[in-house]
Amino acid sequence: MSVPTSAPPTASGPATDLSDVLGDPALDVVELVRRVCDIPSVSGDERALADAVEAALTALAGVEVTRDGDAVVARTTLGRSERVLLAGHLDTVPLTDPPNLPVRREQHPVDGDVLVGRGTCDMKGGVGVQLALARRVAAAGEDLARDVTFVFYDHEEVEAARNGLGRLARNHPELLAADFAVLLEPSSAVVEGGCNGTLRAEVTTTGKAAHSARPWRGHNAIHDAAPVLARLAAYAPREVDVEGLVFREALNAVLVSGGIAGNVIPDRCTVTVNYRFAPSLDAAGAEAHVREVFDGFTVEVTDVAEGARPGLHLPAAADFVARTGTTPLPKYGWTDVARFSALGVPAVNYGPGDNATAHADDERCRTVEVEQCLEVLSGWLLDGAR
Amino acid sequence: MSVPTSAPPTASGPATDLSDVLGDPALDVVELVRRVCDIPSVSGDERALADAVEAALTALAGVEVTRDGDAVVARTTLGRSERVLLAGHLDTVPLTDPPNLPVRREQHPVDGDVLVGRGTCDMKGGVGVQLALARRVAAAGEDLARDVTFVFYDHEEVEAARNGLGRLARNHPELLAADFAVLLEPSSAVVEGGCNGTLRAEVTTTGKAAHSARPWRGHNAIHDAAPVLARLAAYAPREVDVEGLVFREALNAVLVSGGIAGNVIPDRCTVTVNYRFAPSLDAAGAEAHVREVFDGFTVEVTDVAEGARPGLHLPAAADFVARTGTTPLPKYGWTDVARFSALGVPAVNYGPGDNATAHADDERCRTVEVEQCLEVLSGWLLDGAR
Repeated sequence: MSVPTSAPPTASGPATDLSDVLGDPALDVVELVRRVCDIPSVSGDERALADAVEAALTALAGVEVTRDGDAVVARTTLGRSERVLLAGHLDTVPLTDPPNLPVRREQHPVDGDVLVGRGTCDMKGGVGVQLALARRVAAAGEDLARDVTFVFYDHEEVEAARNGLGRLARNHPELLAADFAVLLEPSSAVVEGGCNGTLRAEVTTTGKAAHSARPWRGHNAIHDAAPVLARLAAYAPREVDVEGLVFREALNAVLVSGGIAGNVIPDRCTVTVNYRFAPSLDAAGAEAHVREVFDGFTVEVTDVAEGARPGLHLPAAADFVARTGTTPLPKYGWTDVARFSALGVPAVNYGPGDNATAHADDERCRTVEVEQCLEVLSGWLLDGAR
Repeated sequence: MSVPTSAPPTASGPATDLSDVLGDPALDVVELVRRVCDIPSVSGDERALADAVEAALTALAGVEVTRDGDAVVARTTLGRSERVLLAGHLDTVPLTDPPNLPVRREQHPVDGDVLVGRGTCDMKGGVGVQLALARRVAAAGEDLARDVTFVFYDHEEVEAARNGLGRLARNHPELLAADFAVLLEPSSAVVEGGCNGTLRAEVTTTGKAAHSARPWRGHNAIHDAAPVLARLAAYAPREVDVEGLVFREALNAVLVSGGIAGNVIPDRCTVTVNYRFAPSLDAAGAEAHVREVFDGFTVEVTDVAEGARPGLHLPAAADFVARTGTTPLPKYGWTDVARFSALGVPAVNYGPGDNATAHADDERCRTVEVEQCLEVLSGWLLDGAR
């Protein structure tokens, strides 16, 4: 079933349709990833990709498809006693100028065969794997031992309040019910446990506008921001052990803006900082730390999402880790494992792509990891299939 | 004569037409200034005001009106052996949010009766005085001892390359020919001699983008800007004596921008600085000073305009100063006296408004100065009228 949205479907064509490659009997998952990447989907502009994903999933027999905004959920409904869930976000950070799309497939001196371009790493490699898995799961049908849910969602790369998984949890909590979840965020095909939390705050200085030929009549807010940047430059991030995994923190300016015109003394300067904090700290603790660092300045927290403790001692997680044959690592980036954790669903990160290149202008993904994740997850999902 | 532009005239109405108040036999120059201010004309958006000024001047008999872009020139053509020129710019810096228009007329505890709002000081007080003078000059006609040129121009508050007076000098140099010029920039109705030069430069740091959860994979360009702001905050501006007037310099950040998104380590940060330099320094000397201050950083000069030496020993300037009965002061702000100076036309600043409030959110102009400038300039222009 497909729950239609109010918007008309995007005209299909080679650029925005995925059905041909997903329907191809000789499915090439790397080609599928490339096609997913080549439909731009910067946060807030995911509609074309969500339309293509919805259409491709609807074309598969054996899964129910639900659309909510630009999120798409596909589920088997076999009535099994156990359900596992795989999730990934459709959106990416902004393109570069000139745009780092379409994707190039090339040989990297260290990584070998790679896809290069926006989204290849974070995380359309995982989205492509999910789509390929959905086809195999749909084909297995009644043979599946467990029900399976695939979640594709919007607005992961922006403030937490707009997160599509959060919206799904509010609008359709029943669709996220599961016994265990895998989030296909880039982890180099290694299980990464837990995640750091993330907090964004605006550190603001205020001055008084005046003509820049007579600055002594005003007060320069940008000059006042000098110690804010100096404290950031001098900041020594902490490393925190949580359940045996060492989480590395970080505090950075991510944006700065100030000024009115080229001949006006600026009356306001805002430095937006991003604090990545270990899962041993809650939101209040993280805010207190940022306020301490910027003591004496106006600090407004605009966005905070707590991390998740690793939880790898839980049986479902331990079983999944064993199947991947990898040694778990801590997840430095905030991911929606924290949201599943808050919903009571144990979850781990496991997906293709080295997160070291996530958000970088030249982000890339080794094609071998795409294929490896597909096979590991496919074996896990189809395990015990009748 | 009016040289038509390609754009259709603005529909006339109470908000954008000045003809009624300029044509009123009992002309109230303060009301005229208020009306000029209430037609917003932020740099680049001067058309409505230029249309109104052109229409009001065209309605006067006795002056030839020429339009060039959003500049308007009105001239008597009596064939006198001497010509004087009065000039002022139509544009303003951006409005505040909420907008500091329409103008309010109120009693200020120190300044008395004032107009408050964008443009009242810089420099629509002067524009209103010019319009009122144009009416008197047009009415004097053949009785005038000297020919008179009124120049109203666009794009003064932005980079020098777009300055409307500069464009007029290129397109219609004959319209700017004069023996002496008065620029009605705000000077509290005191003659201000010469002007500081102005230079804008971008001081840029570059880093490497990466996900903000793993900043050790990138390099933070905003953090690198800390010493740029620290040098600005610590900078001690110079005071320079030029021909007996002491020019006070200034170096300020006017804009800062950096960052890509809330979860990306910024790969670029640009601090735009504005250096106001004494007229003893030329453009190359000013650039060398800025490069010295920001030694070690990438500095790109985007805009430079040299100042003007006072030149008050020249006979025409000395005669005008005597008529105003004021003691000349140095002009700290860059003004187009520098452009007239470069064209070989001796020029001074003399206009209503305390430039201490120019560009401030609450910029204002004492109404008594508007009336005083009108009478002083009127007496000067009509002196010797037959």
